[in-house]
Amino acid sequence: MKKINVGLVGVTGYTGMELTRLLEGHSRFELVSVTSRAEAGKKLHAIYPFLQGMPSGEIVITEPDPELLAAKCELVFLAVPHKTAMEIAAVLLEKGLKVVDLSADFRLRDQEIYEHWYKCTHTQPQLLETAVYGLPELYAPAIREARLIANPGCYPTSSILGLYPALKHGMVDTKGIVIDAKSGATGAGRKAAVGSLFCEVSDSFRAYGLPTHRHTPEIEQEISAIAGDEITVSFNTHLLPINRGILSTIYTTLVQDMTLDDVHAMYEEAYREHPWVRVLPAGVLPETRHVRGTMFCDIGLVVDRRTNRLIILSAIDNLCRGASGQALANANLMCGVDLQEGLRLAPLMP
Amino acid sequence: MKKINVGLVGVTGYTGMELTRLLEGHSRFELVSVTSRAEAGKKLHAIYPFLQGMPSGEIVITEPDPELLAAKCELVFLAVPHKTAMEIAAVLLEKGLKVVDLSADFRLRDQEIYEHWYKCTHTQPQLLETAVYGLPELYAPAIREARLIANPGCYPTSSILGLYPALKHGMVDTKGIVIDAKSGATGAGRKAAVGSLFCEVSDSFRAYGLPTHRHTPEIEQEISAIAGDEITVSFNTHLLPINRGILSTIYTTLVQDMTLDDVHAMYEEAYREHPWVRVLPAGVLPETRHVRGTMFCDIGLVVDRRTNRLIILSAIDNLCRGASGQALANANLMCGVDLQEGLRLAPLMP
Amino acid sequence: MKKINVGLVGVTGYTGMELTRLLEGHSRFELVSVTSRAEAGKKLHAIYPFLQGMPSGEIVITEPDPELLAAKCELVFLAVPHKTAMEIAAVLLEKGLKVVDLSADFRLRDQEIYEHWYKCTHTQPQLLETAVYGLPELYAPAIREARLIANPGCYPTSSILGLYPALKHGMVDTKGIVIDAKSGATGAGRKAAVGSLFCEVSDSFRAYGLPTHRHTPEIEQEISAIAGDEITVSFNTHLLPINRGILSTIYTTLVQDMTLDDVHAMYEEAYREHPWVRVLPAGVLPETRHVRGTMFCDIGLVVDRRTNRLIILSAIDNLCRGASGQALANANLMCGVDLQEGLRLAPLMP
Amino acid sequence: MKKINVGLVGVTGYTGMELTRLLEGHSRFELVSVTSRAEAGKKLHAIYPFLQGMPSGEIVITEPDPELLAAKCELVFLAVPHKTAMEIAAVLLEKGLKVVDLSADFRLRDQEIYEHWYKCTHTQPQLLETAVYGLPELYAPAIREARLIANPGCYPTSSILGLYPALKHGMVDTKGIVIDAKSGATGAGRKAAVGSLFCEVSDSFRAYGLPTHRHTPEIEQEISAIAGDEITVSFNTHLLPINRGILSTIYTTLVQDMTLDDVHAMYEEAYREHPWVRVLPAGVLPETRHVRGTMFCDIGLVVDRRTNRLIILSAIDNLCRGASGQALANANLMCGVDLQEGLRLAPLMP
Repeated sequence: MKKINVGLVGVTGYTGMELTRLLEGHSRFELVSVTSRAEAGKKLHAIYPFLQGMPSGEIVITEPDPELLAAKCELVFLAVPHKTAMEIAAVLLEKGLKVVDLSADFRLRDQEIYEHWYKCTHTQPQLLETAVYGLPELYAPAIREARLIANPGCYPTSSILGLYPALKHGMVDTKGIVIDAKSGATGAGRKAAVGSLFCEVSDSFRAYGLPTHRHTPEIEQEISAIAGDEITVSFNTHLLPINRGILSTIYTTLVQDMTLDDVHAMYEEAYREHPWVRVLPAGVLPETRHVRGTMFCDIGLVVDRRTNRLIILSAIDNLCRGASGQALANANLMCGVDLQEGLRLAPLMP
Repeated sequence: MKKINVGLVGVTGYTGMELTRLLEGHSRFELVSVTSRAEAGKKLHAIYPFLQGMPSGEIVITEPDPELLAAKCELVFLAVPHKTAMEIAAVLLEKGLKVVDLSADFRLRDQEIYEHWYKCTHTQPQLLETAVYGLPELYAPAIREARLIANPGCYPTSSILGLYPALKHGMVDTKGIVIDAKSGATGAGRKAAVGSLFCEVSDSFRAYGLPTHRHTPEIEQEISAIAGDEITVSFNTHLLPINRGILSTIYTTLVQDMTLDDVHAMYEEAYREHPWVRVLPAGVLPETRHVRGTMFCDIGLVVDRRTNRLIILSAIDNLCRGASGQALANANLMCGVDLQEGLRLAPLMP
Repeated sequence: MKKINVGLVGVTGYTGMELTRLLEGHSRFELVSVTSRAEAGKKLHAIYPFLQGMPSGEIVITEPDPELLAAKCELVFLAVPHKTAMEIAAVLLEKGLKVVDLSADFRLRDQEIYEHWYKCTHTQPQLLETAVYGLPELYAPAIREARLIANPGCYPTSSILGLYPALKHGMVDTKGIVIDAKSGATGAGRKAAVGSLFCEVSDSFRAYGLPTHRHTPEIEQEISAIAGDEITVSFNTHLLPINRGILSTIYTTLVQDMTLDDVHAMYEEAYREHPWVRVLPAGVLPETRHVRGTMFCDIGLVVDRRTNRLIILSAIDNLCRGASGQALANANLMCGVDLQEGLRLAPLMP
Repeated sequence: MKKINVGLVGVTGYTGMELTRLLEGHSRFELVSVTSRAEAGKKLHAIYPFLQGMPSGEIVITEPDPELLAAKCELVFLAVPHKTAMEIAAVLLEKGLKVVDLSADFRLRDQEIYEHWYKCTHTQPQLLETAVYGLPELYAPAIREARLIANPGCYPTSSILGLYPALKHGMVDTKGIVIDAKSGATGAGRKAAVGSLFCEVSDSFRAYGLPTHRHTPEIEQEISAIAGDEITVSFNTHLLPINRGILSTIYTTLVQDMTLDDVHAMYEEAYREHPWVRVLPAGVLPETRHVRGTMFCDIGLVVDRRTNRLIILSAIDNLCRGASGQALANANLMCGVDLQEGLRLAPLMP
């Protein structure tokens, strides 16, 4: 079958790196163009020795030239910082390409909310309404038709999938929800910063960004839509001394008299058609390593009778499911390829 | 000045190990007796090569014989599992020794609650009312007079110190409190178990024991006493891939209209006389490494206007402040030694 | 195409676990039988939640019954301890099955050497001459014909591939070779042992087993055969606080006047036909993460003019290339399947 | 007793950080001046929250002004990069201060060798002959009289102490020595660099700098002096995913017919008077955690009859013994303070 040519703008970060890994195992997409201002002119294996001897290792990195991308690609992944992404997306869309944007630039439908939380002007507001929020379990039909995908944030992916059945079925109070989220260090990106050094992160644990992490409005936008109610959450983030993985511990209050079995059955039902969301058996709790390198979102459920709480534990791989793998799933849908192509991944254990 | 002879029952676990480390730097206590059924007959440095060349390394481990302990020691630390501890404590107290028990056996004043949560019979209920809960910031006067100390659990130490000023001054609702606690792997103890292997813990993160961790009633007992109200908390625990450290993220709801500065001032006031509790400047959040190997409890405060929440972050070293160091502080008070003797420890960074 | 049924004896260790992961991505083998005495009766996902929702997760673990295995399988992987393996292998071979033994039982051609290093009697010496040492780069033709494969040890795989071109071409002195090898903690196995606990391994580094690690005679057997000379090596092992990966730093002395370019060219030539051995460009040194989860053996070369040494750095994933992946490669060859089937794996980075 | 005022130039790196930790526990030195161009004006606890509430936390960081240092201090520690250090040292010495330089600038007695390995001009060659190499076990008498100490490198400390008895007593061949050294990540310093990020170092292992690490000539200078023979070593370095610790595996060839007991006795004899060098019992091998945070150098000895090799394993904490703790020991000697003052440290375990 003919291959579909794809490009990758911004290869030097962890999401770009992860896309190169995943595209090695994809039978329908061919990575034909890879860009980086800093590394232009080098072969990919020169900056990523792990790609030595693999097909993509031989690709020569170029400057991010829209003409070139348009000439070679049908679809482009943007793995560049927000603000930069919106400009490139606009140009590529105009040239007729499909775009999956891994930044935050098109996730918030409300321009004002974007500008408030990201402290900058949105220069392409006209694209906000055409962009589709790329969470396949919720929006697959729209994603199939989209030309611009706002690829979800890592924390929101974990939070939304964790809360979806509970809010959709009105099991829990929409007030007072607390999301205590913990992420591996790839979430902090690959730029040189003292705070991200091995010796500053290892053998330690800390919270950061409280109480205004930028993923808050994204979570609120999506869970409000699910619940049909304006929800304000307390969303708080911590840095784990691990490479990959997010575990969100989500505290809700049951508004119905439900047993763990009741809740469990409704979660299973909600995700019956969605192979990547695994509702764990009652009593089993997720571990980030069990989803390492994969698209799985593992959900564990706890009902605490003493406090009448439903506690939802939701684990994903922040780089794969929370970024690049999800981007690839969206690209699959946009290009008429099977959703799971290239993404039938078994966790690397241990 | 004459040294005070002390003994240690149960040296092979992490709390016993930590006590040997701390006693090396104590000028008034002399460790004269160390016991372990499994390792009796060996010198301490044979099981702990890190003590090679240090005074305690030459101590010969013996069976836990109460006669021998009574003949040699004035005070004994019990670093054995609950259930075992209560039996030994009773015998040693009868022989006139002072006892600091690091297990849970004397922490819960209500025998029924103990038996419910620990699923066993308490054989020494008569000691429950004489035992003093050994949290120096709250109970120093009683500790000075005590002959039996119930050394607090690691999670409760972190939680109670984090909540104390907020509850004492009625800043927050006593309902709906959530404690999302994360602990390093020494908290799981030093027994051989597949789930504690390096390859099962490293590069991963998980919750465990939800929603009925045994430290729950201990926390509730103490914070209810502080608040003068019966409090039920949602207390939930996670395992960090680090050696030492607990970070508790405590979610409360403000019942007064207070700014971060207001809250901060009251926390500072509450701990003014207590050198080990460090209320961090507004905007600074605790990290477990900043308390590594020390008695510090670092508290960070966050007021979230959007959700009207006061979020309290409380970090301790679970082995030192949360167990053996606190035991030593209690022993200092019981023996008329300066509280900080042997415990003026600077964090090992990084 | 019809699937080939395979079985796995001993699933609870890390090599068994890794085989379940790899077989999920293999299009020709179907895992139909999995055994464990301790876990018989459970579904595989009950002991390995990471397999939840994947085909093999539904397999019910059974006792290791040779009749059953023979009835269902064409080929069986043995992931059990040495000594146990030889007994099972003999029975399965008699029943006409193909066997890939991951233990050490058939690696040493000389029964006496086996019994000396492994301190036990070899009860199946008649099988030693039919067993083929399963290193595909060296022995692919024989492997294709074999019914019993002695799957190489992890350290030997790394050492032999590192030394092969140098010894084959007589570049280096056969005397005085030092192999300083470092392995991740999966190499120590998955049994409960205090020395393998997270808190005993993390944030530390140590040597172990010096100077008589059991992989020594295996290395010597193979490199002596390559060199056509009886070689004695100094082989010494260390434990890294990582999950997967071996890096061997191999010290040799050049006997010819060669530049790094000369050496490099001969290494490239030696491995030209072997896609899994990556001779890194001059100046690039291997990292264990660059081969994580894959079949790659990355080789870095250093010529030190001051000491006239050729230093060879050889990195593999001890679980995949050093055990289960190599077992699968051997099974591919034995069953007429493409060598790389199921093993075109990209490294998980980071 | 009157305190001795000391200063610290360069506080933002790991060696500066470690000095602040160690000086907190020193009864005779008072840290009165701390400098950093980047952080001048801040209190020390503002950049190092772990010092909050400790005396040094209140010190205000200043620019590195020699006048100010001379006015306030008797002795100054230089924890700045080489090249910068030599300039500051010259000025401070002229003003009559004692100087302990933690950089490499005065370690090599031969200016040419310095300039060859460090690729820069030595602007203060006149100081090379007055500088004393600060390894207390070898040079205590000279250190006591010195005004300028060249504080040894971390790797050399470990290597020299490991080889000293063997070379002094002519046990081993001076030719063919291989030092395979592994260091924790603090050894790479605290500057922002992608290669030092948590996600680039954790769960991985690699060699670096082969075959021309700059500590090579320093090791050769010192061991040649011990042996009375010009020694060339193969010295090779690796990066461990741990914070602190160096383990050097040193390969030598015995030239005498000696048993392990013979060698052991001579090592014990050599270090009898030196409390920080612990020659471990035969069969016990060092672990980096056993020296964590301390001045200990743990030495394990292995005699391999098959290869006639003496393998020496030498472990130190690279930050404490290998840098700042050793600097403090040298300062103690220079100021007539007990060598061990402030340095009777028990390892933090685990």
